[in-house]
Amino acid sequence: MLKKSKKIRVIPLGGLNEIGKNLTVFEYGNDVVILDCGMAFPDDDMLGVDIVIPDITYLHKVANKIRGIVLTHGHEDHIGAIPYVLKEFNVPVYGTRLTLGILKNKLKEHGLLRSAKLNTLEAGESVRLGEFQAEFIHTNHSIADAVAIALHTPAGVLLHTGDFKIDPTPIDGDMIDLARIGELGKKGILALFSDSTNADRPGYTMSESSIGKTFDSLFERGADKRIIVATFASNIHRVQQIINAAVKYGRKVAVSGRSMVNVLNAAIELGYMNIPKNTLIDIDEIGRYPKDKLVVVTTGSQGEEMSALTRIAFSIHKKINIEPTDLVIISANPIPGNEKAVSNVVNELLKHGAEVIHERQDNVHVSGHACQQEMKIIISLARPKYFIPVHGEYRHLCKHRELALQTGMDPKNIFIMDIGKVLELSQDSAKIVGTVPSGKVLVDGLGVGDVGNIVLRDRKHLAEDGIIIVVLTIDRASCSCAAGPDIISRGFVYVRESEDLMDAVKDVACGVVEQCTRGNTIDWSTLKTRIKNEVGGFLFSKTKRRPMILPIIMEV
Amino acid sequence: MLKKSKKIRVIPLGGLNEIGKNLTVFEYGNDVVILDCGMAFPDDDMLGVDIVIPDITYLHKVANKIRGIVLTHGHEDHIGAIPYVLKEFNVPVYGTRLTLGILKNKLKEHGLLRSAKLNTLEAGESVRLGEFQAEFIHTNHSIADAVAIALHTPAGVLLHTGDFKIDPTPIDGDMIDLARIGELGKKGILALFSDSTNADRPGYTMSESSIGKTFDSLFERGADKRIIVATFASNIHRVQQIINAAVKYGRKVAVSGRSMVNVLNAAIELGYMNIPKNTLIDIDEIGRYPKDKLVVVTTGSQGEEMSALTRIAFSIHKKINIEPTDLVIISANPIPGNEKAVSNVVNELLKHGAEVIHERQDNVHVSGHACQQEMKIIISLARPKYFIPVHGEYRHLCKHRELALQTGMDPKNIFIMDIGKVLELSQDSAKIVGTVPSGKVLVDGLGVGDVGNIVLRDRKHLAEDGIIIVVLTIDRASCSCAAGPDIISRGFVYVRESEDLMDAVKDVACGVVEQCTRGNTIDWSTLKTRIKNEVGGFLFSKTKRRPMILPIIMEV
Repeated sequence: MLKKSKKIRVIPLGGLNEIGKNLTVFEYGNDVVILDCGMAFPDDDMLGVDIVIPDITYLHKVANKIRGIVLTHGHEDHIGAIPYVLKEFNVPVYGTRLTLGILKNKLKEHGLLRSAKLNTLEAGESVRLGEFQAEFIHTNHSIADAVAIALHTPAGVLLHTGDFKIDPTPIDGDMIDLARIGELGKKGILALFSDSTNADRPGYTMSESSIGKTFDSLFERGADKRIIVATFASNIHRVQQIINAAVKYGRKVAVSGRSMVNVLNAAIELGYMNIPKNTLIDIDEIGRYPKDKLVVVTTGSQGEEMSALTRIAFSIHKKINIEPTDLVIISANPIPGNEKAVSNVVNELLKHGAEVIHERQDNVHVSGHACQQEMKIIISLARPKYFIPVHGEYRHLCKHRELALQTGMDPKNIFIMDIGKVLELSQDSAKIVGTVPSGKVLVDGLGVGDVGNIVLRDRKHLAEDGIIIVVLTIDRASCSCAAGPDIISRGFVYVRESEDLMDAVKDVACGVVEQCTRGNTIDWSTLKTRIKNEVGGFLFSKTKRRPMILPIIMEV
Repeated sequence: MLKKSKKIRVIPLGGLNEIGKNLTVFEYGNDVVILDCGMAFPDDDMLGVDIVIPDITYLHKVANKIRGIVLTHGHEDHIGAIPYVLKEFNVPVYGTRLTLGILKNKLKEHGLLRSAKLNTLEAGESVRLGEFQAEFIHTNHSIADAVAIALHTPAGVLLHTGDFKIDPTPIDGDMIDLARIGELGKKGILALFSDSTNADRPGYTMSESSIGKTFDSLFERGADKRIIVATFASNIHRVQQIINAAVKYGRKVAVSGRSMVNVLNAAIELGYMNIPKNTLIDIDEIGRYPKDKLVVVTTGSQGEEMSALTRIAFSIHKKINIEPTDLVIISANPIPGNEKAVSNVVNELLKHGAEVIHERQDNVHVSGHACQQEMKIIISLARPKYFIPVHGEYRHLCKHRELALQTGMDPKNIFIMDIGKVLELSQDSAKIVGTVPSGKVLVDGLGVGDVGNIVLRDRKHLAEDGIIIVVLTIDRASCSCAAGPDIISRGFVYVRESEDLMDAVKDVACGVVEQCTRGNTIDWSTLKTRIKNEVGGFLFSKTKRRPMILPIIMEV
């Protein structure tokens, strides 16, 4: 009885009201389990930032209770923050084979491969983590070996879908394990946490295998051309289908792009790929084969700077020159924010005369996430007491809530959560009982969290209008200006063409210095402020720009 | 006979291989006509740049031949560069009433209203410009009073569609003048220049009036709510339909957003709107009416920073507090690049409990541009000898070319042009005969063209990793360091939390200074370079970042 009275606490530290950095903390008594541990890409206003990871301040509070990290799949937004978390808490990590295979590449880069405690679980298996029993349940997604995770506790079962779709004809032959979800649902699921990404899309997501037919007809149509296909590196089922088409039409396959090579090697090594001998060739060997006997699989489906496809398009790829006899297939939709970059790549490829198949043309891409009908199937199958839509912006969570209501759920049992909120669950009740620190930690180079609002504000200021430095040396003895003021600018105007303006700035600065050093005393308190204000005001009146003004005064 | 032997030269200075800054130069003998004169919005990498205008270096070469600027419609990408051009060449401008009405607001801001020579033409009218006769032909677009322009010359007729769609049931009652285009086609059009924006969209664009039905049903559904509709300020037909729905349901209409107020005032003044008395109220008066008797029409349909809807969403609008009883309709699709901004606004509105209708939901928006079927109709009707797809990125121009081929055009009579290319046309021939200077001129504040590649490169560098300034004073007499080196950083790290790092940088700089000032001589040539390299190298090793290193050395 005592045990049953314990409550489960659920604390998302990422993945809600945002796309990315998924991390959810589950607590029961003295045990803490972390589900996923992802990164996010920086927003446009996070200048110079490489990646964003969740604020894990709260984990320090429960450090000695953490029994492990369980992973749903190997996408960056679910595993990308693991190196940063393991550096602070080297807890065991549990994932499927491919998930850990991809994670290993990442840990190697961070020098953590030896120390990390990685444990492989197959879908269908479970692991005990304190009072939690974590059960891996097979799902379908745009990466192989994805799982939902059921956390069994004495206070009830929690089901987290991870990212999923329902694919009745998947490439690996195994549909998401609806039977197990249904079984758990019949026994009673306390709370369901389900993927909201496509909550505003009606109907069903097409099967990954529908792409195979598309490739087949495109390969037939482009029989006399070299074919270049760009897609997400981690979508090995997509790559498998490209290889299938290549084999059918007697083409060799070469791979370009670091992440594509890495993931494919891991997938081959772990036995996830079915590639006939002598199909794969090295990118250096493509010259040895006729063009119409080649397929090149590349990264760059999002128009990423320096990705393989972008380098091909802008003629800076060392191995591949784009030609009018090339057929380029971009087998991906642009993620919001990448539309322009993809468009630029398409335009460049077309300018070289290549044929380009992209976006919604010809069904060259399907989503990895469930649409509305599938979401409702999961809710109806799981029949949870409580429902928490996860993995989406606020608008997606709201839509997912609407879908749950359509299945007959009680509105007061649905919780639209936010990161840092603490949801306390028991058989009889669910409520938000508090908040913990949460947010974005910015990673810039080796710095984790040392770029904050002040630094970003300065970068934005510098980016908009550049900097004007007013530097002078004051003679302490005579209280007069010993050198300068000199004016140095960066990112403001092209100085050679604006010498008059710079001379005028110097005059303004000289005027201020003169006034502040009258009578052999120096009005230190106002010297810097006045240089800043008067130079700034002068420049705004002349240019309607507001560069950062930085007065530097040395004493000798 | 002599006259006929003269050739027409066509030189686009903007609008090809890009969206925006449309400007095309037409030359015949001693006469030059400029068609449209627009601006573009800066790309993401043009940090701090306000707008982009075409490089008009070439116009200086033909300055004394320019007979005027003819305008197709009042959108920014067709009129936005006029103030900058008129400052250099105060040539007459010809446009329809609404186009000039909107232009006047712009000229006023630039202090050019008095000096500008504006001439109003109605669709159906013509004006003689040297040997050119410019004929205005009514079209449909997402702004009222749009025209195609036929340029009649002794060497043949050129037809430029401007931006258009074929709307058989437009709000102003007048379909695009297909009859006149057909008539010109029968007589013989030498070259057609046609809008390529939607060249990759099959079928037809829906009629603007289809939106009326959507508003009608949304207003009925939201009968107990305040309704806020965001749309493009210049789409006065859309605004008219919002007003129609408001009138039908007995609501007052208030307007928020500077450009919306400006355009609407111009449209009302010129008689383009049909608004019953006592329908429009001042935004300050909204408190006097019940919420369910109000409609607010706002700017911000693209999620623009500081636009009315964005201010409403983020609770910084002075007059409007968003509430759960609000229905917000975003009657526009996000322009590529604006998806995230719009999504953020939608999320914020939803968090306040408002209902939000947006994007492709419920048909709240239709395009102002023709789709493939309409494009083919124009080509088949105009039956031009030569065809030049305009107004689009390369991929759009290519698609438009394909459509022209489908209508039976000879591939060698279709020209995919680029800005700066000179196309020479006669009854018997068409060919690219050369290039002229062309490109992007960046406007930042009052500066036109003073922000170039070096400045942008510096801004990008500053934006990514900030700046480290190493400043010291050298005593000329003793050849020693009299003050400093001091280290100042901006946009690099938050200094208070990185004092150790900054101290270490100082040590590195001191070391360099010591080595370069040995034996009472100063190795000037290497001092700056070594500070730059050694401080830069040290920081990269410690942080994997590359801030701009700026050594400043003063002499006393």
